[in-house]
Amino acid sequence: MKINIAKKAGFCFGVKRAIDITFNLAKEDNKGLYTYGPLIHNPQVVEELKSKGVKAVDDLTSPDIRTIIIRTHGVSPEVYAETSKMGYNVIDATCPFVKKAQNFAQILNDEGYQVLIIGDKEHPEVQGLIGFAGGHAVVADNADHLPALKNKVGIIVQTTQPFDTFRKIVLQVISTVREVKIYNTICDFTAQRVKETRELAKKVELMIIVGGKNSSNTNQLVKLSEDVCAKVYHVETAEEIREEWFQGIENVGITGGASTPQWIIDDAVKKIREISVRR
Amino acid sequence: MKINIAKKAGFCFGVKRAIDITFNLAKEDNKGLYTYGPLIHNPQVVEELKSKGVKAVDDLTSPDIRTIIIRTHGVSPEVYAETSKMGYNVIDATCPFVKKAQNFAQILNDEGYQVLIIGDKEHPEVQGLIGFAGGHAVVADNADHLPALKNKVGIIVQTTQPFDTFRKIVLQVISTVREVKIYNTICDFTAQRVKETRELAKKVELMIIVGGKNSSNTNQLVKLSEDVCAKVYHVETAEEIREEWFQGIENVGITGGASTPQWIIDDAVKKIREISVRR
Repeated sequence: MKINIAKKAGFCFGVKRAIDITFNLAKEDNKGLYTYGPLIHNPQVVEELKSKGVKAVDDLTSPDIRTIIIRTHGVSPEVYAETSKMGYNVIDATCPFVKKAQNFAQILNDEGYQVLIIGDKEHPEVQGLIGFAGGHAVVADNADHLPALKNKVGIIVQTTQPFDTFRKIVLQVISTVREVKIYNTICDFTAQRVKETRELAKKVELMIIVGGKNSSNTNQLVKLSEDVCAKVYHVETAEEIREEWFQGIENVGITGGASTPQWIIDDAVKKIREISVRR
Repeated sequence: MKINIAKKAGFCFGVKRAIDITFNLAKEDNKGLYTYGPLIHNPQVVEELKSKGVKAVDDLTSPDIRTIIIRTHGVSPEVYAETSKMGYNVIDATCPFVKKAQNFAQILNDEGYQVLIIGDKEHPEVQGLIGFAGGHAVVADNADHLPALKNKVGIIVQTTQPFDTFRKIVLQVISTVREVKIYNTICDFTAQRVKETRELAKKVELMIIVGGKNSSNTNQLVKLSEDVCAKVYHVETAEEIREEWFQGIENVGITGGASTPQWIIDDAVKKIREISVRR
């Protein structure tokens, strides 16, 4: 059995940066060290952080917080204001590409545009962007269900959205709106990973996607693989991989989301190699 | 034979306005009254203006100019400066929708965008728009042949361009450019005429398009009719219509460009009615 490992599997720049910042801080002094929500959407990493004394909180009034780490997805200006009011030491691990999108959201709102965010309304990155757009942005993840638009629309995109969704929504918007300002804030690394995954999934009979079940970009890789490959499995760790999946398979592809650590991908590859040897 | 006359055939708002302004001026005093280039792209109207003493000039230094009329397509700021330097009385008959596009061209250039004009480079409207964009705009009329683009592009559209060209070029631009500001300056009236013409041409066996051979929007109606109708003829006047075209035809459609006067369309309809009666 041939095992094809994606070159762009695993941590992206922003996630790696956030992880490095947090582990370095924990090494120095983990007293009262918290992340605001889980640092990244990967339960295994969050578990490892916990073992180093870094806990996640959703409630900023928690009494023993001293240092709070803002996670890769970013937060709204209201959260910054709250942390500052509470007198915490704030470490900002927001991905620099998300930071850029936040800045554009603010510019568009200041310039009087109705801000349209292309993305998942419930995702923390989008929640932060809504805040930077003055709290009244509209959100869409599908060209068939656009909210009511005004005649001056500014568009930004959740960094991990597929280009195709962006393209379709822009087409829909320009068919009715006269003035449209667009910042394509899709992360290049994510776009490349999407492209590589699609190509890989096309040429194999089975795809294994490794990553958090709560990870938006990992779920996206699963979905787009399913469009072109008959057998696709989403696993969080090697333990979930079942030997029977590989019966009659000659070519398997493997990749991981932006929040999947290398060691988890390595473990999955190792397990598939062992299955391959036994056949 | 059934004769289907398009509802939106003939003069658009901007052309009607320019014609009214000019004929009214000529009635009062036609001494030294000139249009800068032909007032509209219709040789018969230009001929009629000439008979009222209104001549067209391309050269602003012509000695007996007293009043100069700026035509519907508009001109660049350099031409305004020249007319003012020469001390002429300037009557601005630029179509208000073109005026709006000129204003947007200026805004985009002032805001540091590379201005991309979707339109025909040689058309006087586009020549004027280039001037308002600071003289260094790029022009495209086809998504397959885009000029080299920078990373901050502002788009305006020649008012008579088809929406489909606009759509395709925007799609191409957003696939490489990160910041894009779009003003859709396509004239509604033109868009409706295009839509109506396409629908009419689909249901008839023969289309007659009446208008200047040098009229951009009339030529556009010819082209789009040819896509959906087997027999399409472009005529400037009724005299060009040939009886043999109508052999075996049961359904004929007729429309005219934005610069085609009603009397020319009426003449063409009359001629077709006569042919129909004789059969």
